[in-house]
Amino acid sequence: MRIALGIEYDGSRFRGWQTQEPGVRTVQEALETAVSRIAAQPVGVVCAGRTDAGVHAAGQVVHFDTSARRDLHAWVMGSNSQLPDDVSVSWAREVADDFHARFSAYARRYRYLVLNRCYRSALCGGRMTHWYAPLDAERMHAAGQALLGEHDFSAYRAAGCQAEHPMRALYELSVRRRGDFVVLEVEANAFLHHMVRNIAGVLLAIGSGERPPEWAAEVLATRDRRRGGVTAPADGLYFLEVLYPERFALPRGNPSALPVLA
Amino acid sequence: MRIALGIEYDGSRFRGWQTQEPGVRTVQEALETAVSRIAAQPVGVVCAGRTDAGVHAAGQVVHFDTSARRDLHAWVMGSNSQLPDDVSVSWAREVADDFHARFSAYARRYRYLVLNRCYRSALCGGRMTHWYAPLDAERMHAAGQALLGEHDFSAYRAAGCQAEHPMRALYELSVRRRGDFVVLEVEANAFLHHMVRNIAGVLLAIGSGERPPEWAAEVLATRDRRRGGVTAPADGLYFLEVLYPERFALPRGNPSALPVLA
Repeated sequence: MRIALGIEYDGSRFRGWQTQEPGVRTVQEALETAVSRIAAQPVGVVCAGRTDAGVHAAGQVVHFDTSARRDLHAWVMGSNSQLPDDVSVSWAREVADDFHARFSAYARRYRYLVLNRCYRSALCGGRMTHWYAPLDAERMHAAGQALLGEHDFSAYRAAGCQAEHPMRALYELSVRRRGDFVVLEVEANAFLHHMVRNIAGVLLAIGSGERPPEWAAEVLATRDRRRGGVTAPADGLYFLEVLYPERFALPRGNPSALPVLA
Repeated sequence: MRIALGIEYDGSRFRGWQTQEPGVRTVQEALETAVSRIAAQPVGVVCAGRTDAGVHAAGQVVHFDTSARRDLHAWVMGSNSQLPDDVSVSWAREVADDFHARFSAYARRYRYLVLNRCYRSALCGGRMTHWYAPLDAERMHAAGQALLGEHDFSAYRAAGCQAEHPMRALYELSVRRRGDFVVLEVEANAFLHHMVRNIAGVLLAIGSGERPPEWAAEVLATRDRRRGGVTAPADGLYFLEVLYPERFALPRGNPSALPVLA
């Protein structure tokens, strides 16, 4: 039987999603330990998208195969009782055998949160990126529209990225101001390694006036990571939701759990 | 010279406001250490209201006296550079010698945040109280109105409370639902020890149907803590702001920094 789970985590105290050597705290390792206890057998999970150290998730999705029979409520509540405070399961569904958390997804959404004022905030620590210089959110939004569509995103791709090719289709990009906060939201068929943080880095430079609005498109056209901007910090980044074909009937993410409702 | 500071903190990893024996992590000790470094002399701070272990603050206010001359920007940015991530200074003002962070305040506001759904949230951990049973926010709001005005709040007062008398004037109480969240906000001239958490405890019992709406007033009338409800957990409680007479010209709190903007 194949089960899908919706997963939320605060990435601050994790060394990212993917299991590493023993003793390194990762979300995958925490989740597999908890789910294996509920299943009373070893369970390996496959996620929709691996996240880096410090990156949060409101709507990560995983699937796993098991011969253990549990009702869906037990997969949620049981796993939550076994997980540390900074990971939780939001929902569980039995899915068809051809469902795959990563390969069945047709799009992913990320949100990037910036606290934009001169002094930092204890209540936002680890949950948002603090940016001193005043940002022009409308200018960032306008500049970002040049990235929409299918492109070679090599210039926004981390050096160590393991994707087979650099083509990605960006469906939506918005930047809005809400009081002291600037909220970037992006949707693409998939993202390259560091792609959202590299887009954020370029838009932050444009928003604070260091670079002209055309720079986002210029960087894209170079296809050269060395021409891009600084990779924005991980702590403002949230994996918001994964979109699957309707036939799988999975719940959407739960963005309302985020510190800034946008 | 007397200086006032606006203070924000995430109380999760503090044993409350007030300095205790050495080695116990408190907000007061962290703040005095940081400010003393900036002043290059020992500084003791007086706060508007002491908070318990786990309680957060968006708008705590302190004052201190010093002979050190620093511009206001240095008190803010310098202190922030010396403070741990979970405490921050929002503003600094020079104030008249008759200003007192505690005694000059004519009112305080607190907010209590509840995540109200059957499964917990990793992103809300430590920042909100998780309540499984469905809550009727309108019923809680209506029941709470019976507490408005000046009353003997002994039934909502912790056993160890050191206040001289139990009379407090409650100016405002509201309970609203926003999606999965229920937000309680209260304003009073001052609060007794555990008073907000005890009000929250009674309203949560009313909101989930365990008690009738009249119970809030009935508990009040007993003036007996043993007749009250459970003290609601600290992690949902935020010290939102302190109100001072206009002549002191201090900034208001910054509730927008909170996880749920209400």
